[in-house]
Amino acid sequence: MLTLSQKAQKMPASPIRKLVPFADEAKKRGTKVYHLNIGQPDIISPDQALDAVKMNKLTLVEYPNSAGIESYRKGLAKYYQNININVEYTDINITTGGSEALQIALAVTCDPDDEVIVMEPFYTNYNSFALQNDVKLVPITTTIETGFALPSVEEFEKKITPKTKGIILCNPANPTGVLYSKESIEKLGEVAKKHGLYIYSDEVYREFCYTEEPHYSCMHLPGLEENVILIDSVSKRYSLCGVRIGCIVSKNKEVMKGVLKFAQARLCSPAYGQIASEGALDTPQSYFDMVKKEYMHRRDVMLEALNKMEGVKCPNPQGAFYAVVELPVDNADKFAQWLLEEFSYEGQTVMVAPAEGFYATKGMGVNQVRIAYVLKEEDLVAAMKCLEVALKQYPGRTL
Amino acid sequence: MLTLSQKAQKMPASPIRKLVPFADEAKKRGTKVYHLNIGQPDIISPDQALDAVKMNKLTLVEYPNSAGIESYRKGLAKYYQNININVEYTDINITTGGSEALQIALAVTCDPDDEVIVMEPFYTNYNSFALQNDVKLVPITTTIETGFALPSVEEFEKKITPKTKGIILCNPANPTGVLYSKESIEKLGEVAKKHGLYIYSDEVYREFCYTEEPHYSCMHLPGLEENVILIDSVSKRYSLCGVRIGCIVSKNKEVMKGVLKFAQARLCSPAYGQIASEGALDTPQSYFDMVKKEYMHRRDVMLEALNKMEGVKCPNPQGAFYAVVELPVDNADKFAQWLLEEFSYEGQTVMVAPAEGFYATKGMGVNQVRIAYVLKEEDLVAAMKCLEVALKQYPGRTL
Repeated sequence: MLTLSQKAQKMPASPIRKLVPFADEAKKRGTKVYHLNIGQPDIISPDQALDAVKMNKLTLVEYPNSAGIESYRKGLAKYYQNININVEYTDINITTGGSEALQIALAVTCDPDDEVIVMEPFYTNYNSFALQNDVKLVPITTTIETGFALPSVEEFEKKITPKTKGIILCNPANPTGVLYSKESIEKLGEVAKKHGLYIYSDEVYREFCYTEEPHYSCMHLPGLEENVILIDSVSKRYSLCGVRIGCIVSKNKEVMKGVLKFAQARLCSPAYGQIASEGALDTPQSYFDMVKKEYMHRRDVMLEALNKMEGVKCPNPQGAFYAVVELPVDNADKFAQWLLEEFSYEGQTVMVAPAEGFYATKGMGVNQVRIAYVLKEEDLVAAMKCLEVALKQYPGRTL
Repeated sequence: MLTLSQKAQKMPASPIRKLVPFADEAKKRGTKVYHLNIGQPDIISPDQALDAVKMNKLTLVEYPNSAGIESYRKGLAKYYQNININVEYTDINITTGGSEALQIALAVTCDPDDEVIVMEPFYTNYNSFALQNDVKLVPITTTIETGFALPSVEEFEKKITPKTKGIILCNPANPTGVLYSKESIEKLGEVAKKHGLYIYSDEVYREFCYTEEPHYSCMHLPGLEENVILIDSVSKRYSLCGVRIGCIVSKNKEVMKGVLKFAQARLCSPAYGQIASEGALDTPQSYFDMVKKEYMHRRDVMLEALNKMEGVKCPNPQGAFYAVVELPVDNADKFAQWLLEEFSYEGQTVMVAPAEGFYATKGMGVNQVRIAYVLKEEDLVAAMKCLEVALKQYPGRTL
């Protein structure tokens, strides 16, 4: 009689984490493992955030408001207004990370068996949030050949059925690093408008754009105020992954009323995290300039190294801190495990995330990995050297 | 096409919060409102927790492990061992509050349309967690006449169907303040064992027991190791509601594997909250003695006042800091609203939670309210005075 639910049985193992036991074994053997598998930035959090927590004067850590601490919501509204996203604080509900934001956004808008379109490869936890809500993710494949560009309007329309509730867009994208242009976003907006779809716009990497143009948000789309639900988080913006603070932003009052009901059911988001996030609003521009420069440099270091490796294909990512890379191997999953289990070069190896788990379509991404360029130059160079040597030694190499 | 999900439409408004707008209006008119509606303790958090956060040395707030920070889990295992709950740290998964703990526990064990038995009146957010998992809560009514005692084995068996997956027990209980005896828990254990059911044992008020006997946990039940899933939280224990830290504890390895998958999907619980909670493990016994003495005193103050009011019925609650009280009114919901909208006594009024929302059976609890005795004596006395005067003036009084 004591059984687990089908959801528990189906819940996918994370492609980012499933090789962790092999990494732990490698470390036990004394091998240094460079982690390119996880999007955990190594850049320090801004003092403004850290100090806000250290100097806090709470003597009783009460439940904050379910919608978030009002002063933080007001400060956050200003942050958005400064980037030309014209929202009031009442359009914002603080959440426990971007994860909860998307989870609640789907719960509020989707019934079981509803469909949501998503460009693959996509952030794997979208699978979990969909599964938790019994929503079916309908993938549109984007390819390394086109630099993972947005599919055409026709391709979207082919996937739209009466069950389609919306489209998830991640911009800049995890795992591909693709940055969608204003024109692409506008096309997507037309599709959403024409078919009455929500756009769940995951913009948690907004500050990581490496072109001259400002980031174009789905919230900028005129006439789409009822359709767009912004998913945001402080995790990457301020290197505050552990504080678990994100938010849902929408001008759609009905959606926000529904969001608040789900928010009340879990009472509130963490108080200290909100204090850190409110403090982080004072982060000076110099911090972002430093971070951007650093990531652009790392990306260039990675690209230069990858481009020298025979049979390796990598588009030039324009945002976030990831790249999906094609390798001359039979199977990237096996290769990633082999890197940890059997390979080492000068006592070092590298951990990457096999890309197969980022696709919903079976058989896609088999020879691809996601690389998170979250290490400082010296380590990144060493990690690339490991990869280069490994590709020459791996028994399943295809060159 | 842009519609809300049925869940969003059905998600119940909290009986604790739905009158908040009326309270806000009363405050705007200059009326002082005593909040007996919400379980937000006014007792300060222990310095050990607050200082751990203030003195933290993090420069980069990384994702903690999805199962929780290991040193905290190890410390927490010792806390349990000290109260004779023999678990290892690997039997513990830290969660984002007790709310997430129960939500995940249901997700891991229940499929849509499965049934879970719960004694009513019960903590209203159980409705939300059940709804989020498409689980049906099957209530067994407990009554004020018996002091909300545990129903008989026969009554449980009447409710068990092939769809029944488990029983939620809250001990000591919100909202009734009832504390179940060892004998009651053992009977419940027999039912669970015989019918192969999970026991979701919500023990977040464990430190608030006002009898001489030690708290008897479902985790103490011999032979039920596979059945019992402990739901816990630091919110009440250390007055740390806002840190959002709880946990799931079980010796059932399959369940814990499922829990970890859901935990990975939301990445982690908040880092600062875990730091506060780990610090709180060093809270001296004197803190708990102080808190217990204070709440017992408040309870006695409340009971003495209530017992003097004609037509008011209140059992003697032995745990937590709530009581469900029967009032001589036509409708407690209307009465509670009237208290905020139309009544004041010497510029003061009182906010209570209508009890109807704590029952799943229609028509139950209509003349009951939940009182949270979370105010210091002086305020509690003033609040009781308001209630006494109000019951004489309320147009819908039944005496």
